[in-house]
Amino acid sequence: MGESNNFFKSAFSVDNVIFGFDDGDLKVLLIKRGTAPFKGKWALPGDLVYPNEDLDNAAARVLLELTGLKNVYLEQVHTFGAVDRHPLGRVITIAYYSLVKIANFELTPSSWASKAKWHSISEVGDLGFDHNEILNACFNRLKQRVKSRPVGFELLPKKFTLTELQHLYEAVLEIELDKRNFRKKILSMNLLKDLNETQENVAHRPARLYSFDKVKYERLVAEGYNFAL
Amino acid sequence: MGESNNFFKSAFSVDNVIFGFDDGDLKVLLIKRGTAPFKGKWALPGDLVYPNEDLDNAAARVLLELTGLKNVYLEQVHTFGAVDRHPLGRVITIAYYSLVKIANFELTPSSWASKAKWHSISEVGDLGFDHNEILNACFNRLKQRVKSRPVGFELLPKKFTLTELQHLYEAVLEIELDKRNFRKKILSMNLLKDLNETQENVAHRPARLYSFDKVKYERLVAEGYNFAL
Repeated sequence: MGESNNFFKSAFSVDNVIFGFDDGDLKVLLIKRGTAPFKGKWALPGDLVYPNEDLDNAAARVLLELTGLKNVYLEQVHTFGAVDRHPLGRVITIAYYSLVKIANFELTPSSWASKAKWHSISEVGDLGFDHNEILNACFNRLKQRVKSRPVGFELLPKKFTLTELQHLYEAVLEIELDKRNFRKKILSMNLLKDLNETQENVAHRPARLYSFDKVKYERLVAEGYNFAL
Repeated sequence: MGESNNFFKSAFSVDNVIFGFDDGDLKVLLIKRGTAPFKGKWALPGDLVYPNEDLDNAAARVLLELTGLKNVYLEQVHTFGAVDRHPLGRVITIAYYSLVKIANFELTPSSWASKAKWHSISEVGDLGFDHNEILNACFNRLKQRVKSRPVGFELLPKKFTLTELQHLYEAVLEIELDKRNFRKKILSMNLLKDLNETQENVAHRPARLYSFDKVKYERLVAEGYNFAL
C-alpha cells in the first residue's frame, strides 16, 4: 500500500435521525450516551461501522437494535467529515434519516445508549458531536421529501383523521395550512381510503377516519407524487 | 481508544463527477488512471482525503488540480461504502458532482491521472472501481437539479442561443422537448437577457444570442426555481 499507509487510520460511523409523529408533534429519537465521548449527553443514535459491514446495513442495524424494527424507510442524506468533529480521531459519519410509527414498538436498550427518548423537534437542546447540524440537514431533507413522497404513510397510525394528516404537514413544513385547500388537495389525489368509521372516545365531535391506500401509494411514489402547496 | 482500535484502519476518498456541455452533448470528465489499482482504466477523478482535510475541501482540491478552476459549483451527492469496493482495503468514497464551462480552462495533468478527457455521457464504457454506479447516481441528481436550479448558468458559455439551452435540457433529461412550449416557459421566467446580437460565422440563419441575468438568477435560486415540464 506504500504511502497510502498514512491514510488507513480513520474510522466511519452512521448516525440515524429517526422521525416519529405523535399528538400533532414531529419528534426525533435521541439517546443519552452511555460511554465517552459526550457521556451523559443527548445525541443521535449511531455507531461505528464494522469492517465487514455495508453502510446501509450499519444504519439498519442501529435502528433495529434500538427499536426492534426491520424494513423501515431509511435514506442516506449527507456525510459529515470536519477534521475535528470526533475527539477520538478522524471519524466521518454518514447520516441517515428514517420514518417510523411511534406506537408500533417499544424502545430497547443498546450497548451505546443508556436511555432513549422521543424529543419534540422544537425542544431539542445542545446535542453531542455535530449532531445538531446533522439533525438540521435531515430535517431539511424531510421538508423536501414531504413534497415528493406521501410521508404520512410511514409516520401516521393506520387510521387517522384529515386533521391529523394536516398537522403532520404543518409540523414538517413549519407553516400553517388552510384547512379547506388542504382537504381539497389531498382528497383529489385519491390516495386515501375513507374507512366509513369515526373516532371513538373523543371529547369533541368525532371525525371521520381514513387510511392510506397502499396500492395507490406505491403507484404515486413510482409515478412521482407532487404535493405542491 | 480501547476496542475501537479495530475500527481505525479505514480510509476515505472523494470522487468527482464533473459535467460539462459541448456541441449539444452532455459530457463527463474522466481520467486514465496512472497508478494501481485499475491502472490504465478510465475512472472518475478522485483522491484519498488527507488526514487534516475537510471533505468539501478535498473535492475542491481534486477539481482544482485537474482543471485549475476555483469557486465552482460542487455538491455532495452520496457516499459509497460496499465492503469490497476497493482492492487496497476498506475505503469509502464520498461522491460530488460539479458543473463547469468546458471552454473556460485547459486540463492540467495530475499525480493520479496520466490523461484526462471529456467523454459523452452516452459513450462512457466500463469504469474502474464502482464508478459507473457513482456516475449514475450523480447523473440522476443532475436530472433532479435541472428542475429546481437553472443549471445552464453553470454549463453554457456566456452567450448562447435558445436552441443551445433547449439542447442542454434535452441532454440532461434525456427527452425531446417541444420547441414552442420550451421557449414560452423559459422566457416567461425573465431569467434571460436578450443581447440584441446574433450568431456569427454559422451556415444557417444566425440565431439570437442570450445570456443569464445574474441578479435574476440569484433571486430565482433563493426563491425556488421550478422548471416543471
